[in-house]
Amino acid sequence: MLRVWGDVSVGTGDDAAVLDVPAGSRLVVTTDTAIEGVHFRREWITGAEIGYRSAAAALSDLAAMAADPLGMLLALSLPEGLTPSIEDLAAGVKEAAHRSGCPILGGDTNRAPVLSLTITALGHARLPVRRSGARPGDTLYVTGKLGGPGAALRAWLSGSQPRPDHRARFVYPVARLDEAKWLVEHGARAMIDVSDGLSSDLHHLAIASGAGIVVNLDTVPTALDVSPLQAAESGEEYELVIAAVTQIDCDEFVRRFGIPLTAIGRVEAEGPGTVKFEASGTRVDPVRGYDHFSR
Amino acid sequence: MLRVWGDVSVGTGDDAAVLDVPAGSRLVVTTDTAIEGVHFRREWITGAEIGYRSAAAALSDLAAMAADPLGMLLALSLPEGLTPSIEDLAAGVKEAAHRSGCPILGGDTNRAPVLSLTITALGHARLPVRRSGARPGDTLYVTGKLGGPGAALRAWLSGSQPRPDHRARFVYPVARLDEAKWLVEHGARAMIDVSDGLSSDLHHLAIASGAGIVVNLDTVPTALDVSPLQAAESGEEYELVIAAVTQIDCDEFVRRFGIPLTAIGRVEAEGPGTVKFEASGTRVDPVRGYDHFSR
Repeated sequence: MLRVWGDVSVGTGDDAAVLDVPAGSRLVVTTDTAIEGVHFRREWITGAEIGYRSAAAALSDLAAMAADPLGMLLALSLPEGLTPSIEDLAAGVKEAAHRSGCPILGGDTNRAPVLSLTITALGHARLPVRRSGARPGDTLYVTGKLGGPGAALRAWLSGSQPRPDHRARFVYPVARLDEAKWLVEHGARAMIDVSDGLSSDLHHLAIASGAGIVVNLDTVPTALDVSPLQAAESGEEYELVIAAVTQIDCDEFVRRFGIPLTAIGRVEAEGPGTVKFEASGTRVDPVRGYDHFSR
Repeated sequence: MLRVWGDVSVGTGDDAAVLDVPAGSRLVVTTDTAIEGVHFRREWITGAEIGYRSAAAALSDLAAMAADPLGMLLALSLPEGLTPSIEDLAAGVKEAAHRSGCPILGGDTNRAPVLSLTITALGHARLPVRRSGARPGDTLYVTGKLGGPGAALRAWLSGSQPRPDHRARFVYPVARLDEAKWLVEHGARAMIDVSDGLSSDLHHLAIASGAGIVVNLDTVPTALDVSPLQAAESGEEYELVIAAVTQIDCDEFVRRFGIPLTAIGRVEAEGPGTVKFEASGTRVDPVRGYDHFSR
């Protein structure tokens, strides 16, 4: 793997990697596993895509805390003689790491009956943003457009090929690292990334913040040919949902980052820990608890 | 898992854990995977033992750098309805973490076809000790007695039960964290933990340090009923091998830590990157490249 990673890798060959956290910053650390048959199937996507999306998912957890990446560690398990090869997987991890300016600190490779990748991402932030910071009166915003990964998954599971744009959202998620820092500078005080699906992740936010959340489903930004309800149920989006104390200039955001920022709801004192979705004034209930396709 | 871990866990429920590295210290981080059928078999050891030894192995990598633990993250994958349960595995991880005073920062649990644990351990050290610091003239020492885990494995693989003392060394390795710091204060300037086997790990040290190593096999401290050659080939010991610029008082070490410290060889300028084992003046060659029992 080290050969593939080249100068993205700073592995020392020691028992552990050594790095420095900038003075005044706190360390932010997260670990995330992607398993064949649970999070992806090998007949759907390439080795490089498997590596890429696993690394991007871990980096997205750093983004959700408004942290800058310090480095990542990869624990890779795969069957002998497997396609994709270690080299393909490592190349995908490298691409995602490189794109986010994140050094690869080291790895651990093992033979195993099933392909899996566990990626640990380390970052630093002066003031990490929590899920618990949302307060009544805050406006909810979401980055990007939702529903692509869910649509890709539905296509594969029904035996067809997903549209290229939906497929691309599944295999090449983008950790919104720069966006997160900008959003915090512009009033975001609670943040979470959409990994389990908008509906599920908003519940996490509502519970952590002890506040109620109301979403206008008609305003949820959707990928092409995806309904708002499907968008609210789609997981592994790796877009950010934020609660902001101020109104954020969504036009400036799209100019700066090339993706939309959309106000989709508000934080209320009523119903702490609950999320209400309304469409044309009527209450709707997206399916919660997106838990990968193996269920 | 959080319920089992109780106050050893500091997980926040956020996308990532947040912690502080003491000022003036460097961050030391390592990741390590244990897989059913590769590193252990479920019919040999209990769930708590699987969890314990996985966590101890990760902590041992911190010890090998003379680092103090900051925390650990666990990525756990296991089949549905599996024995052992998540609770048993988590209890073992907790026990090892607690024993080393290491908080559990969080985890990621997934259903998967095969049981595996990936543990990331974070630590800090003002001056992390590397494998590369050995210099000609240094004396080599090893902590503890070697050969127990290898003997346990041989027994299981031959269909019998290991002796209780050999089995205990396999299931309850001890990360030599306090020992490592004391050894550095007393002259250790290169260090590695014995995970692949003394012979293999000394090669790593010799290569990283660009020096030759000569071991007197007759002096290698062995577990009961284990030959020096078997001891030199036994992996997953998690004892420390050090190269020290000074003579270390082994009597004081045993009084302080209750385990032996033994001089087993020396570092030379000749044969950089090579390791010679001598027994009664004759050269012997332990098998290198201990690579678990699945080979």
